[in-house]
Amino acid sequence: MTALSTRELAELVGGELRGQGTRLIADVAASDAAEAEHVTFLDGVAAEGRPRTNAGAVLLAAKHLDVLGADSNADLIIVSAPLDAFVKAMLHYRPVAAAPTVGVSSSANISPLATLGDDCHVFPGVTIEDNVVIGDRCVIHPGAYIGTGCHVGDDVTIYANAVLYPTMLLGDRVIVHATAVIGADGFGFQFLDGQFVRIPHTGTVRIEDDVEIGAGTTVDRAMIGETVIGAGTKLDNQVMIAHNCRLGQHNAFASQVGLAGSVTTGDYVRCGGQVGVADHAHLGTGCSVGGKAGVHGTVPDGEDYHGYPAGPAKETYRIAMAVQKAPEMRKQLRRLEKQVQELQSRLAESDHLRAHAPAA
Amino acid sequence: MTALSTRELAELVGGELRGQGTRLIADVAASDAAEAEHVTFLDGVAAEGRPRTNAGAVLLAAKHLDVLGADSNADLIIVSAPLDAFVKAMLHYRPVAAAPTVGVSSSANISPLATLGDDCHVFPGVTIEDNVVIGDRCVIHPGAYIGTGCHVGDDVTIYANAVLYPTMLLGDRVIVHATAVIGADGFGFQFLDGQFVRIPHTGTVRIEDDVEIGAGTTVDRAMIGETVIGAGTKLDNQVMIAHNCRLGQHNAFASQVGLAGSVTTGDYVRCGGQVGVADHAHLGTGCSVGGKAGVHGTVPDGEDYHGYPAGPAKETYRIAMAVQKAPEMRKQLRRLEKQVQELQSRLAESDHLRAHAPAA
Amino acid sequence: MTALSTRELAELVGGELRGQGTRLIADVAASDAAEAEHVTFLDGVAAEGRPRTNAGAVLLAAKHLDVLGADSNADLIIVSAPLDAFVKAMLHYRPVAAAPTVGVSSSANISPLATLGDDCHVFPGVTIEDNVVIGDRCVIHPGAYIGTGCHVGDDVTIYANAVLYPTMLLGDRVIVHATAVIGADGFGFQFLDGQFVRIPHTGTVRIEDDVEIGAGTTVDRAMIGETVIGAGTKLDNQVMIAHNCRLGQHNAFASQVGLAGSVTTGDYVRCGGQVGVADHAHLGTGCSVGGKAGVHGTVPDGEDYHGYPAGPAKETYRIAMAVQKAPEMRKQLRRLEKQVQELQSRLAESDHLRAHAPAA
Repeated sequence: MTALSTRELAELVGGELRGQGTRLIADVAASDAAEAEHVTFLDGVAAEGRPRTNAGAVLLAAKHLDVLGADSNADLIIVSAPLDAFVKAMLHYRPVAAAPTVGVSSSANISPLATLGDDCHVFPGVTIEDNVVIGDRCVIHPGAYIGTGCHVGDDVTIYANAVLYPTMLLGDRVIVHATAVIGADGFGFQFLDGQFVRIPHTGTVRIEDDVEIGAGTTVDRAMIGETVIGAGTKLDNQVMIAHNCRLGQHNAFASQVGLAGSVTTGDYVRCGGQVGVADHAHLGTGCSVGGKAGVHGTVPDGEDYHGYPAGPAKETYRIAMAVQKAPEMRKQLRRLEKQVQELQSRLAESDHLRAHAPAA
Repeated sequence: MTALSTRELAELVGGELRGQGTRLIADVAASDAAEAEHVTFLDGVAAEGRPRTNAGAVLLAAKHLDVLGADSNADLIIVSAPLDAFVKAMLHYRPVAAAPTVGVSSSANISPLATLGDDCHVFPGVTIEDNVVIGDRCVIHPGAYIGTGCHVGDDVTIYANAVLYPTMLLGDRVIVHATAVIGADGFGFQFLDGQFVRIPHTGTVRIEDDVEIGAGTTVDRAMIGETVIGAGTKLDNQVMIAHNCRLGQHNAFASQVGLAGSVTTGDYVRCGGQVGVADHAHLGTGCSVGGKAGVHGTVPDGEDYHGYPAGPAKETYRIAMAVQKAPEMRKQLRRLEKQVQELQSRLAESDHLRAHAPAA
Repeated sequence: MTALSTRELAELVGGELRGQGTRLIADVAASDAAEAEHVTFLDGVAAEGRPRTNAGAVLLAAKHLDVLGADSNADLIIVSAPLDAFVKAMLHYRPVAAAPTVGVSSSANISPLATLGDDCHVFPGVTIEDNVVIGDRCVIHPGAYIGTGCHVGDDVTIYANAVLYPTMLLGDRVIVHATAVIGADGFGFQFLDGQFVRIPHTGTVRIEDDVEIGAGTTVDRAMIGETVIGAGTKLDNQVMIAHNCRLGQHNAFASQVGLAGSVTTGDYVRCGGQVGVADHAHLGTGCSVGGKAGVHGTVPDGEDYHGYPAGPAKETYRIAMAVQKAPEMRKQLRRLEKQVQELQSRLAESDHLRAHAPAA
């Protein structure tokens, strides 16, 4: 948290200094909020906007050296990956707070049949039910609920008021944000005698290592078997994963995405915000689905899909462009119809004239 | 939970055995995960996919007898409704856990002015406020909050961290999943002197018998009168029901559906995921609305609506198909315009020629 | 809560009485549910529907005096703003319950390093961490969580199971509804060696005076700097505001709206339900965005945008109307193509005939 000269800062982030190197930098800041004592960074998007900044130091790529213009008198630090360098600087100035040292609170409701690993922190108001097994160095925040028979790995963080229904399986380094709900019964009913009768959901949810589950996100348990969130996958807030979905590794879903039942995904799948995916659809490895798209069927590996109904981005874009012209097309059609009618009459007249031409 | 021979299993589910009947089946499983000791089932969708399964027993309809092919050596059990039969088998192998027997925890915060029926289970960390009346055999999980003056029927389950604001009315056998919120103030404001001023919401929410409310779902209280969820209606996770909506009986709304204020629905209405319904719209009895559709006005009884803006499915489909052709249509239009111009010049020329034809 | 004669009621709301003035009115009610002892109101929408009501008194605008027809025998009270008058009546009959007088519960978990103002009510099961500062007359409901270093103004209400992550800043008169989550980490990751690595989010959220945050709504903390919700802004339930968004004053967002990262808005911006806004977009002062619209780029000040992709309402409407005709347009095109072909052959034939015309 100590201030650094821009020379020291350049060393810290492994960058090349352009400037005196003597300015003192006390903190990080966004480019538009930065003052002389701040270091900021320029990524590609920001650089395009030709931003002005009052920052005392700027981390940027060599190709953007000219972007700031002559009126900037910041010390520049050239790095290959400005965001990475900025994160390094941020971690210097704002070190991650030491894990809370509450230990296991006596105000938590912990079943004597539950097992906790070493160095866990369990806050007041937490409930941990029978036969729960929790690994080492986990932090369970106030109001979190861990149902009977859940298995939780090492270094897991569960934030306030998150809920794990019974029998959930969580790997290592999983993060579950506040009010997320893992393992509610899937939305499956039989329709008998005019009523919906719940199908018991006796399956579970398996959340693999390094998954992050956003605030308010819900992942339903499988009817039988498992709903799976593959290792390294990140789900933003208010995402819905229905029963029996099986997500691959390193997916990234933005906020308010909804997957219906039994959807499967490959690895490295990305979904923009508010995407909806119909039941039994498949999102192939490395594909991406644009915000608000509605997917049925299969998105092939590596493809970029957009729109509703979703299709290949290029095609969807062409269609969207054409649709913008639909009113004009209607006008063209009316004009053409008129012109064709005119031609028809003229031709008929012309034929008539010829047919009845007076013998010369 | 004891293993059954396939002969015993056929008897249990009331099916007709095709096979030796001596294999021992120890559990249920999904068709793709099943091994020799498992029973699985084929519904119509699965059967179409001509699945392979290593299951030792398969519940299926007579018409799908050939689907599994010669390489399957499962014992087959013919039933009229494979899913129903499977649920019977599942309940044999995985009986529903006995209700928890915590009784009324001394760590719950229960007002002395609240009344609880017989055989209720109230977990630690629950709050039950003044003048709440709760029926018999209810289960209230940790962290749930029941506000002043709520009336809750018999056999109701309220999961962890769910919230009932004051004065809510719940019928019998209602299920409220984790973090659902019933009775927050409707989103109603007066705009006075450049500011939004909250309109007091003094109405309530009435949730009738056998309703299920999904995790993270929110149902707002009426301004005056009641927001109503009709008997038997099932709401999936992250559904939003705004103030003064009145839902009929046995509706089923998939995840992330949103209803604006004062929407009404008949009975047996189904909505796919992420459907949005504008204020004061009406969804008629027996209608269904496809995923992601946006509804204004009225969906007639029994109709199937899709799209945004939503319309009758057949028409919406025709329009969507035509829209896919929009880029091609633009090309056709340009071609036609050229052809018509050409025809116009040729005809003009032809007329000219005739007019000036040398007298023969 | 005492009954009023319609004469007294007219005085209370500052209206002009048409009728005897002696009927006794005991409560408010919606027009369709009202009986003789109720007062109701007619706004523009209701008046258009030519409603029947059994209410004993009706608040309405002068121009709607005839709407109720001859069969109504209600006493009429003419007012300039019927809803405002109705709210006055409602507050007479249903006065806002006195604030709960629990004081600071000994069953709340409050850090000795936290500071509470005067006349606060903190319910059982609340957690307030170190260095939290809370103003006067705040009400914190059961299960709410207030993380380390949060600053909360005066007259703030935080409902059950809402979560404030550490370091949040709340102004005066803020309302946070049940299960809302303020300050979870923004969805920002670096992609390194085939994995997503969390970017630390060391910024915060600033919620200005008179903001209301709906149930289940999530507002993420900034990476650096602040995510801002401007004074007087109202967010409905299940709204998502991503990291580094900056909302102006007096915005009103309906349910299930989602803003991606770094979106900015002016003042008096309105969004309908399920609107999605892409990252770095800007919604100008006084603009409105229709339900389910998808916004990229900029919505100019004062504009009304609709659709996906969103555009000016008039244009979007024209396009939508034309799109409805797309199937018909395809038919027209086919017909025209045929007609043009026919014309081409006829003209060719005609030319041929003329060319080969027997010399007269």
